[in-house]
Amino acid sequence: MRDEKTRVFIVGLGLIGGSLGLALRASGRYTATGFDADEPSLDRAVAIGAIDHAASSMAEAAGADLAVVATPLLAMPSVFAELGSHLRERRGRSFGSPGTVVTDVGSAKGFVMAHARQHFAPDIPFVGGHPLAGSEHQGIEHAAASLFTGCRYVLTPGEWAGANAVSRVTEACKAAGAIAQIMDPHDHDAMVAATSHLPLVVAACVANVVGRRAEAFPSIWDMAASGFRDTTRVASGSPEMGAGMLTANCARVLDALDEFQVEMDRIRRQIEAVLSGTSPASFGEVETFLSRARAHRQIWLDLKERTRASERGTSEKGGVNAWLSPMH
Amino acid sequence: MRDEKTRVFIVGLGLIGGSLGLALRASGRYTATGFDADEPSLDRAVAIGAIDHAASSMAEAAGADLAVVATPLLAMPSVFAELGSHLRERRGRSFGSPGTVVTDVGSAKGFVMAHARQHFAPDIPFVGGHPLAGSEHQGIEHAAASLFTGCRYVLTPGEWAGANAVSRVTEACKAAGAIAQIMDPHDHDAMVAATSHLPLVVAACVANVVGRRAEAFPSIWDMAASGFRDTTRVASGSPEMGAGMLTANCARVLDALDEFQVEMDRIRRQIEAVLSGTSPASFGEVETFLSRARAHRQIWLDLKERTRASERGTSEKGGVNAWLSPMH
Repeated sequence: MRDEKTRVFIVGLGLIGGSLGLALRASGRYTATGFDADEPSLDRAVAIGAIDHAASSMAEAAGADLAVVATPLLAMPSVFAELGSHLRERRGRSFGSPGTVVTDVGSAKGFVMAHARQHFAPDIPFVGGHPLAGSEHQGIEHAAASLFTGCRYVLTPGEWAGANAVSRVTEACKAAGAIAQIMDPHDHDAMVAATSHLPLVVAACVANVVGRRAEAFPSIWDMAASGFRDTTRVASGSPEMGAGMLTANCARVLDALDEFQVEMDRIRRQIEAVLSGTSPASFGEVETFLSRARAHRQIWLDLKERTRASERGTSEKGGVNAWLSPMH
Repeated sequence: MRDEKTRVFIVGLGLIGGSLGLALRASGRYTATGFDADEPSLDRAVAIGAIDHAASSMAEAAGADLAVVATPLLAMPSVFAELGSHLRERRGRSFGSPGTVVTDVGSAKGFVMAHARQHFAPDIPFVGGHPLAGSEHQGIEHAAASLFTGCRYVLTPGEWAGANAVSRVTEACKAAGAIAQIMDPHDHDAMVAATSHLPLVVAACVANVVGRRAEAFPSIWDMAASGFRDTTRVASGSPEMGAGMLTANCARVLDALDEFQVEMDRIRRQIEAVLSGTSPASFGEVETFLSRARAHRQIWLDLKERTRASERGTSEKGGVNAWLSPMH
C-alpha cells in the first residue's frame, strides 16, 4: 500500500534545498529524497534530517510526486535536461500515473520558464517557484526548517501545467510555512531586479569603493560601522550565485540600474550645488530627496508590521491563516 | 568642597546626547546637565536619567568641565557661537580656572573644526569627536547607555587645545565604553564619506527606485525581503540629519560618489556584455567583481571578529582593556 506522505525529490542541497527538506519533513506530511553532485553536502543533508534518503542519481526523481530543483540558476538548464529525460522515460513506462511535478527555486523566472518550456513541455508539469527567503550564508550547514516561515513564495506555473500540478506545489509552499502567490514571470523579474538584484549590485560597489580606499587609508576598516555592515551585507553572498542572478535576469537588472542612475544623478547634482554654493535651496533639496526615500521605505515597514499583526491575530484565533505555521 | 565627579554639559538630547548622558552617569564618575531647545526632549532626558538637571540656557555650560555639542551638524555653527560667548565671558571673570573643554559628536570633522576655530580659538579648548555609533532611529526615546560599548570614537583635537583638554575628552570616551582614536579631520572625512555617507546615498536611491516602480507594480513591496531591508536601512534615518552630513562633508562625499560610479560603470558593462552575448567571459567577470566585493567585506568581518575575540580575552583576564566595559 502506498505511503500517504507526499514524496519530494530535491536536487541541490544547499541553503534553500536543505531548508525546504527540513521544513517539509517537519510538517509530517512529506518524505524527502535528495541528490547533490557534492557528496559531503548530500551526506550532511541526511545527517541533519533534511532528507530521508540520498539518491545516487537524478533518475530517482521519477519515483517522486514533486521534484524541486534547488541548484544555482545557471546549472538549471542542464539539470532540467537530465530530469526531463528521466521523467519522460518513466512516463512512457507507466501510462496513466499522475507523474512527477517539477518546480525550482530560482530568482529569475523568465530565464527559468524559457528553459523549462524547452525541456519539460508539453507533458511534464512545471511550476516555477521563488521563495523570497535567503541569507548571505550558503550551504547545507546554514539550512533551517524555519527559513520560509511567513515568507512570500512566488509561483509561475507553466502554461502546460494543470491545476493539480499547481496545487501540489502550493501545498508544499504552505507546508513549509510560506505564503504562495501566483505571478507573471516577467512581472516577478521586474520587481526582484529592483528589490533584490539592484541591492546586490550597489552593495558590491560600496564594498569595492571602501576596499579600494583602504589602500590609502588602512584604518578605514575600523571606521566602518553598522551602516556599512547592513548596506553591504548581501555582498557577502556567494559570487557564483550572485553572478547567476545578475546574468539570468540581465535585461531587467539593466533597467533597474538605469533607474538607479537617474536617482544617483539627481542627488549628485544637489550635493554639487551645495559645494559650489550656486543654489541656496540645495540643502532643502537633499533633505527632500532623503525624505522621499524614507517615506518609500516606511511603506514597506508599515506593510511588514501589518503582516506581523495579522499573523499574530490569526494564530491567536486559530483562524484561516493557521497554515502559516509549518507545524499545523 | 567641590564634587569629585566630572561635570558634563550636553547640548542636544537626541539619540547620541541622551545615550552619552546615560553612559557617563552609569560610570559613576560624571554628573550631567543638559540643554535642548525642544522642551519635551529635555524633560524626557531628566525622566530617564540621561541628565541630573535640565539647564534653562547654554549659559550654564560655563560651570562644566566638559561641554558636548550633540545637535545636528548644521546647527553647530550657531551653537558654537553662543557657547563661545558664554565660556569666554566666564573665563574673563574667573582667571586661572581650568575652564570648560568643548567637544562635539558630528560626522564631518573638517566642517566642525573650521567652525570651532572661528568661535573657540585661541582660548577655549576644543576637541572634535565622532562616535561611530548610531541607528536609523533618532531621539531621546531610543537612547541607551550601551550605545557606545566597544565602538570606535574618533577625536580631532584643535591645534589650540592642550594635552589636558584632549585627556579630559578621552576619559569621557572611555567612561562611555568607547575606544578613543585621535585622527586628522580630513582623513576622517575621506573615510566616513565611503563607509557612512556613501551608504546613505545609495540606500536612499535604492528605496526611491523601488518606490517609483511601485507605481507600475503595487505588489513590489511584498517582494522586498531581507536584502532590501538591510541595504536600505540607513534610508530610514532622519532626512534632516542625513542632509546635514551630506552637506557638511559635500566635497568628500562627491569623491566617494565618483569612485562608486567607476565601480557601477564596470559591473554595468559586464552585465551589458552578458545581455548582448558579445563576451563569453562576461559571466566570469561579474563573478570576479562580486568575489572582490566579498573579499573586501570579509576583511572587515575578520577585523570585527578579532576585535570581539580580543575584548573577550581581556575581559576574562581583567586585562588592560577592561575599560571597554562602561561599568568598570
